[in-house]
Amino acid sequence: MLEGLMQDDHPLTLQHALWRMRHMNAAQEVVTLTEDGYERATYGEIAERVDRLCAALKELGVQPGDRVATFAWNTQRHLELYLAVPCMGAVLHTLNIRLFPEQLTYIVNHAEDKLLFVDESLVDALAPLEETFETVERRIVLGDEYEELLAAQEPRFDYPELDERSAAGLCYTSGTTGNPKGVMYSHRSNILHSLACSLPDAAAISRTDNILPVVPMFHANAWGYPYAAALLGAKLTMPSRFITAERLTKAFADEKVTITCGVPTVWLDVLHYLDEHEEADVSSLRMAMCGGAAVPASLIQAFEERHDVPVIQGWGMTETNPVASVSRPPEELESEERWTARARQGRLQPLLEARLISEDGEVVAWDGESTGELEVRGPWVARAYYEDPEGADKFHDGWLRTGDIASLDDEGSIRVSDRAKDVIKSGGEWISSVDLENAIMAHPAVREAAVIGMPHERWTERPLACVVVGEGKEVTPDELREHLTPLVAKWWLPDEVAFVDEIPKTSVGKFDKKALRARLADGELDRHAVGAEA
Amino acid sequence: MLEGLMQDDHPLTLQHALWRMRHMNAAQEVVTLTEDGYERATYGEIAERVDRLCAALKELGVQPGDRVATFAWNTQRHLELYLAVPCMGAVLHTLNIRLFPEQLTYIVNHAEDKLLFVDESLVDALAPLEETFETVERRIVLGDEYEELLAAQEPRFDYPELDERSAAGLCYTSGTTGNPKGVMYSHRSNILHSLACSLPDAAAISRTDNILPVVPMFHANAWGYPYAAALLGAKLTMPSRFITAERLTKAFADEKVTITCGVPTVWLDVLHYLDEHEEADVSSLRMAMCGGAAVPASLIQAFEERHDVPVIQGWGMTETNPVASVSRPPEELESEERWTARARQGRLQPLLEARLISEDGEVVAWDGESTGELEVRGPWVARAYYEDPEGADKFHDGWLRTGDIASLDDEGSIRVSDRAKDVIKSGGEWISSVDLENAIMAHPAVREAAVIGMPHERWTERPLACVVVGEGKEVTPDELREHLTPLVAKWWLPDEVAFVDEIPKTSVGKFDKKALRARLADGELDRHAVGAEA
Repeated sequence: MLEGLMQDDHPLTLQHALWRMRHMNAAQEVVTLTEDGYERATYGEIAERVDRLCAALKELGVQPGDRVATFAWNTQRHLELYLAVPCMGAVLHTLNIRLFPEQLTYIVNHAEDKLLFVDESLVDALAPLEETFETVERRIVLGDEYEELLAAQEPRFDYPELDERSAAGLCYTSGTTGNPKGVMYSHRSNILHSLACSLPDAAAISRTDNILPVVPMFHANAWGYPYAAALLGAKLTMPSRFITAERLTKAFADEKVTITCGVPTVWLDVLHYLDEHEEADVSSLRMAMCGGAAVPASLIQAFEERHDVPVIQGWGMTETNPVASVSRPPEELESEERWTARARQGRLQPLLEARLISEDGEVVAWDGESTGELEVRGPWVARAYYEDPEGADKFHDGWLRTGDIASLDDEGSIRVSDRAKDVIKSGGEWISSVDLENAIMAHPAVREAAVIGMPHERWTERPLACVVVGEGKEVTPDELREHLTPLVAKWWLPDEVAFVDEIPKTSVGKFDKKALRARLADGELDRHAVGAEA
Repeated sequence: MLEGLMQDDHPLTLQHALWRMRHMNAAQEVVTLTEDGYERATYGEIAERVDRLCAALKELGVQPGDRVATFAWNTQRHLELYLAVPCMGAVLHTLNIRLFPEQLTYIVNHAEDKLLFVDESLVDALAPLEETFETVERRIVLGDEYEELLAAQEPRFDYPELDERSAAGLCYTSGTTGNPKGVMYSHRSNILHSLACSLPDAAAISRTDNILPVVPMFHANAWGYPYAAALLGAKLTMPSRFITAERLTKAFADEKVTITCGVPTVWLDVLHYLDEHEEADVSSLRMAMCGGAAVPASLIQAFEERHDVPVIQGWGMTETNPVASVSRPPEELESEERWTARARQGRLQPLLEARLISEDGEVVAWDGESTGELEVRGPWVARAYYEDPEGADKFHDGWLRTGDIASLDDEGSIRVSDRAKDVIKSGGEWISSVDLENAIMAHPAVREAAVIGMPHERWTERPLACVVVGEGKEVTPDELREHLTPLVAKWWLPDEVAFVDEIPKTSVGKFDKKALRARLADGELDRHAVGAEA
């Protein structure tokens, strides 16, 4: 091979983000919400605190490659850990505070975390679990204890030379089956992801931006925004645990936030709040990134038409660092087309590639209609799970199996129609449980609905709708059928309806269809046949 | 080392840009100016032509690592070569058509070019040199001959797996001393450079943009715009050899160009044209990138105030792929501050680092005033010249010596004050020849001025101003002194003035101060002492 003669060994590491904070954006601010106001520090001050933190970690015995855990909200101190731990060569393991206790015990022990930093407000929540952690040598509270550690050190640190492929962060993803699986981010993947996410066709991040990540830093790097901000010199506004619609909208106005990001339920709350509080000022916002679950077109449309805030949908997974696609269709699309396009999962980010694989292993065309399991690859896609050979079936010939059933159009724009394990296989065709649920939930009497496949001798599977009726409301199976008839193909109509008090949820708040299927198998669902032809 | 578990082996190569052209931006257009109009092709069509071209190159015996030269303007066919040659594993060597003949002979033979593609319009210019080329097996004219090569192949090619560090392109840079030196770009450097140049704080390139690169593709990758456009799906408008202000402004309007780039003289011509042609419509332009030489604040201000086009200055070298910094200060600066800030060379791109080194090898502070030689490093900075051990003194401990004397402020914004070899060392201090030239050229009777150091027993050197007086105008040495007195420090005032008919230029159009110094040493300059105190 004839080599290029550029500095190709110059590593892409998070140390460079720290370098820019210190040397090029020292005056930029990080603001953290508190009980009754805001705390502030500059990037220059934070860089010095990171130096002290690195020195403290070293004194506490943290070695290159060691895992250091956090159990914390989005705050300046969490940002300091985001930078210090990987920049001194160790691995930041962000614990999802909403996991079930047994999952937390599993992942802390599986990762063999050495230190654990915990928010003052979360000390009590963590306490009952601590005795189950087998490797944690010290638990440090992100309050006075943390400040004392920093104060005991000098603001300087001799940073090691790092390989760009070395591990920087660890985040476990909990499916509905088996133990959580660890995704190990590299320095390289974080830097490349930060660049791509900052491009104009993604979040268009500039040093003049102010980013408020509502999505937690314990959830796939807060979608990469803290690292992108540090690299590009954008201001960060950290909500800590104050994530009510009221506090968020006040922070948007007080700090002139330009970019924010969170899951759909956050924006539903904020939309509701804005509709009721005319005085709220969100005029500084130029983008509310939304992902983690399919974003309804109605939400996007309402936000833009009523409050002039573009809700931009992104798609990705913990395994994709996490942003893999962003939906920013051209501005000039006419309204109907526009909302439909915006409700897609969006176009693949540069440097990522995708393909669709049918049930029989064939590559499916990008025709905007044909569906298959979406597989992706590229420099910020996982190639394996941490110490988990059982997870190997998620990787296929250099590609990540996303578990999503999707179509792709001729511009590489993704439309996810279902999770592969939730799709209902009926007569050789697929019924999208998600599309069916959305159609059912459009009925005014329905609060929630989850659709699962029932085994069926002739058709393999047929849809069963599990429905939660709203308080004080009523609907019969036949009324539901009538409601659905104009909305979906006839063979999609559920054979049966089961009325339930609530849809069981996973630890991250998604419908737990595995639990529903178990209740179905155990005969615990109160099922009603629909119509005569079912 | 604990490795990350992302796809860190997934290479960053230009094959991905081709992949996106084919799969995600097939409908996007490339438009090329012709004698009397435009030629058009889509990215999808170009991707197929690239497949054919790769097959043709292979049939012509091009092996991985072989050098394939071009002698061509900015056209669709040149873009096809930009993609095909590196994507099939060979190295694209872009010949600067403006080099002196002996330099062209030197670089073709030094690079051992195997094939040479030449524009029809340049066949005659190249002809006298061809017999001096020792390794070129075939010269292919970018007209019918090229089309026949493509037509003979199928539109498919089995692309090799490439290492991201493999060579992709070769461009020689001609200093004023010694032979031209070859900079060998890697796939990785081109991809990372494309991403960084497309960020909002740089050129902010989106798929909705239309880029017209006036800067030639034989000049440091046309500043990286063709690759960035291909990667991000922007439209390209290629001017070919039709680069008069009239044709360029017409193309801006006809094709609704949003981004253009070129050296200051191009924009001076266009400014002049726009001032005289009120009907010209440049309203689609949101940015005219300018670099290659210091951009006068007056040009930036005139363009923006009179024609609402932001002229954005960038800085870089062939050795930096080439864009290393971009000057986009915050919009809200007040006018005076704004033009001064915009006339700086701008802030370092993400992933690049800089330092200033004094004459005695000390690191100089970033205080906005202290100057030193600018050194840069990062993933798109050269680490060596191609087969040229004599060039090793340009590299210093992992850093590239840029040869520019500069200051840096506390935001990492560069202000280049002079070339290191041109700075005048007087009494232990430095006088910027560039600043002095600009002050002299502000005199209405002066058309051009170059300042060089004259050896001086007491002060080491003192400035000599070589001045070209405008047609029909007159100025005396003492009038120049009077003009300069309020503009520069007293000890900067030139001791002598030499009136010359023209300033000698290098092959790339820069002042050839080495030639002036030779004329000074040979006693060929007609020098006049200035004032009594000199």
